[in-house]
Amino acid sequence: MDDTPTLRPVGTVASPLGDAADAPRQPDEGAPPAAIVILPEYDAALAGVAAGDRIVVLTWLHVADRATLSVHPRDDPAREPVGVFATRSPDRPNPVGLHEVTVVAVDGTRITVDGLEAVDGTPVIDLKPVLGPIDDR
Amino acid sequence: MDDTPTLRPVGTVASPLGDAADAPRQPDEGAPPAAIVILPEYDAALAGVAAGDRIVVLTWLHVADRATLSVHPRDDPAREPVGVFATRSPDRPNPVGLHEVTVVAVDGTRITVDGLEAVDGTPVIDLKPVLGPIDDR
Repeated sequence: MDDTPTLRPVGTVASPLGDAADAPRQPDEGAPPAAIVILPEYDAALAGVAAGDRIVVLTWLHVADRATLSVHPRDDPAREPVGVFATRSPDRPNPVGLHEVTVVAVDGTRITVDGLEAVDGTPVIDLKPVLGPIDDR
Repeated sequence: MDDTPTLRPVGTVASPLGDAADAPRQPDEGAPPAAIVILPEYDAALAGVAAGDRIVVLTWLHVADRATLSVHPRDDPAREPVGVFATRSPDRPNPVGLHEVTVVAVDGTRITVDGLEAVDGTPVIDLKPVLGPIDDR
């Protein structure tokens, strides 16, 4: 048991996106291929992750503003602000990013994925399979 | 910017599930209706969350074992162990739970949802809309 909600980054995003301003607003707006580089001490946790898998990558969006509670949708000042829990804004109390991607290759602790909307150096906190049949758990 | 990956719980799960042993293995194995009680200071972040919404609830699975890197699928010792990143086991380095649910009602800071596989008292760290059209962001 561990009651302390302190994250331990398990890896890092390696991406051509160098700046938050470059990042697309949604994955289907052109997220580039990227790699997830897992730290050697978490190598064993990768056993069974393979090319072709659909996975959810959880990241820590370290450049986000954690004090933001409401935003104008799509940063459009003409639109009424809404609460961040009703949006996918990276600015939120706990800026955990969810990215559903396809694994292109696994080379040791380096996982290449088809597209990831996170800037280079973003901490990775978890990988999970997209849920399939119950037996796949 | 905040480089410290320390989570700030924004609320708590209120559920009839009192013990991890009661929790179903997957949502479709019978997760009961539950409520998410958001802390008053995050009230503004809820604006725009409404009954009928499909949302992803992120929880901190505080009873999980963070040292576990591989597991027998479905706790079956006859099956070969696999890395936790290839499973949905709650035992993993950063035990963040992902729960896709439908909002049944919003009553102030209490959000009733149709089914949530997390024990009573589980910290809630984020709510996000399930992605729809880009314009919904």
